[in-house]
Amino acid sequence: MDFDLTILGSASATPMLGRHHTAQVLAVGRKQYLIDCGESTQERLIEQKIRFSRTDCIFISHLHGDHFFGLFGLLGTLHLQGRTEPLRLFGPAGLDEVLTTQLRCSGTPLSFDVQFTCVDTTQHQQVYEDAAVTVNTLPMRHRIPCCGYLFREKPGRRRLVKDLLPTGLVPEQLQALTRGEDLRDDVGHVWLRHLDVTEPPPAPRSYAYCSDTVFTESLADLVRGVDLLYHESTFLHEMLERAVQTGHSTARQAGQLARLAGAKQLLIGHFSSRYRDLEPLLEEARREFADTNLALEGLTVGL
Amino acid sequence: MDFDLTILGSASATPMLGRHHTAQVLAVGRKQYLIDCGESTQERLIEQKIRFSRTDCIFISHLHGDHFFGLFGLLGTLHLQGRTEPLRLFGPAGLDEVLTTQLRCSGTPLSFDVQFTCVDTTQHQQVYEDAAVTVNTLPMRHRIPCCGYLFREKPGRRRLVKDLLPTGLVPEQLQALTRGEDLRDDVGHVWLRHLDVTEPPPAPRSYAYCSDTVFTESLADLVRGVDLLYHESTFLHEMLERAVQTGHSTARQAGQLARLAGAKQLLIGHFSSRYRDLEPLLEEARREFADTNLALEGLTVGL
Repeated sequence: MDFDLTILGSASATPMLGRHHTAQVLAVGRKQYLIDCGESTQERLIEQKIRFSRTDCIFISHLHGDHFFGLFGLLGTLHLQGRTEPLRLFGPAGLDEVLTTQLRCSGTPLSFDVQFTCVDTTQHQQVYEDAAVTVNTLPMRHRIPCCGYLFREKPGRRRLVKDLLPTGLVPEQLQALTRGEDLRDDVGHVWLRHLDVTEPPPAPRSYAYCSDTVFTESLADLVRGVDLLYHESTFLHEMLERAVQTGHSTARQAGQLARLAGAKQLLIGHFSSRYRDLEPLLEEARREFADTNLALEGLTVGL
Repeated sequence: MDFDLTILGSASATPMLGRHHTAQVLAVGRKQYLIDCGESTQERLIEQKIRFSRTDCIFISHLHGDHFFGLFGLLGTLHLQGRTEPLRLFGPAGLDEVLTTQLRCSGTPLSFDVQFTCVDTTQHQQVYEDAAVTVNTLPMRHRIPCCGYLFREKPGRRRLVKDLLPTGLVPEQLQALTRGEDLRDDVGHVWLRHLDVTEPPPAPRSYAYCSDTVFTESLADLVRGVDLLYHESTFLHEMLERAVQTGHSTARQAGQLARLAGAKQLLIGHFSSRYRDLEPLLEEARREFADTNLALEGLTVGL
């Protein structure tokens, strides 16, 4: 099953030619989760040929415009496409009020329900679950209420090892084995142990989205061992003071957090428009954590 | 003096690759007026290398998202750039409420004043005037309150004809002549008639922006003789029924309106995403009005 993250925007507050506001799509199997939705996200989805109709959940980190001003246009387009399936929206208090006001003033009720969940950005708690994943909030420390999101794949079923299977098993028996159940005869004796004919499922994958925040060491505990960590890196470390003032992190700090957390891979993004060349940011983060890449528009990372 | 219109978006409700939501910039001398502000307008301004800081007035036609969802991001960027000059915003009732709600929920008061003028979309009346232009509303007939805007350049001063001027005139005398005043001696006798040494100023230029609307013949009277008419052409005429249902016009109707109004040039835009090839729309409009062009992204028309 796929577990792919696609980056739609790498810019911080001010967009540039080719650098757009923050948005990401996590695709897990046939499901898609949109994470933040900066202005013109719908145009990025078109560019990346991502069919948005598959998305049922949108997670918004905070109410700075570069993280959610694309939401209203996207919902409007889904309405024009005739969507009827409800859409779940997660975000801080106030997001529903902005949305309701926009819709009322434009005289356009949507063709589908938006089911809003107001998340407590100060807590690390599960806010969503489906057959494929759980999603927990990650408290960020920013100028306004803000949280990241941690996506954890649910454990899969054990895998059958064909060469070890006796012949003649019916589908129900095979499914029981993948669920970790042994097969028993009529009097209850185990005649086939699942451990003998199956192997463990692949390790569940995980993705942690951390934007926007000042460096917060305690975050490492919450994302320990994560397969992929996205951490904002608005500034180079020489701008640490400015980073702290504005509620942001430096590339060095992003690398430090990945190392502290024992992450497997790091993506850095949300770059200040002062950096036309992003290599210095990448090098700075890599000095702390080698397996770092730039979260640039169009990048897809498969786990 | 320049009187140039630049098109930033040609799409109607649903954007496409390369076709963006409606926005236009009218540059008159050193002043710039932004007309509608669809999502990602700030990215179009960057692409077209238009310095937005010069703009003091934004005119919004109506509160469908494809005409104003770019406003909040643009204002946010001006805030980040440290703008202090007030900005005048014209639009229908409700726009100020949406803006106020957005700003409050994002916890970001702007660094400059937005002075909102609520326009009556049912009237043809002057809503703005500066040294260069007057702006009048143009009532549109759409699904929600909507108006166009008519920009009329103010008459310039008469021009001095150097070969006819006597020598020895001081600057104050020259300026009086360009204002259409005669020069008199101490006892009040005219000794130099302005008509003898000046020629009339160039004819004032005008631009009418008409989007979104069903075909409305009476509009022709309001924009009679306009130098440049932009009229929406969402559909081909074979889709007339759909156009009327959705409050839009066809390319043929845009051409008819231009002909009825005695416009000098016509631009058509706001194209439905069903039309990948726009030539049929252009041909249809040109059968009614020859001097028609497509209002495509990046086009600049100088008058």
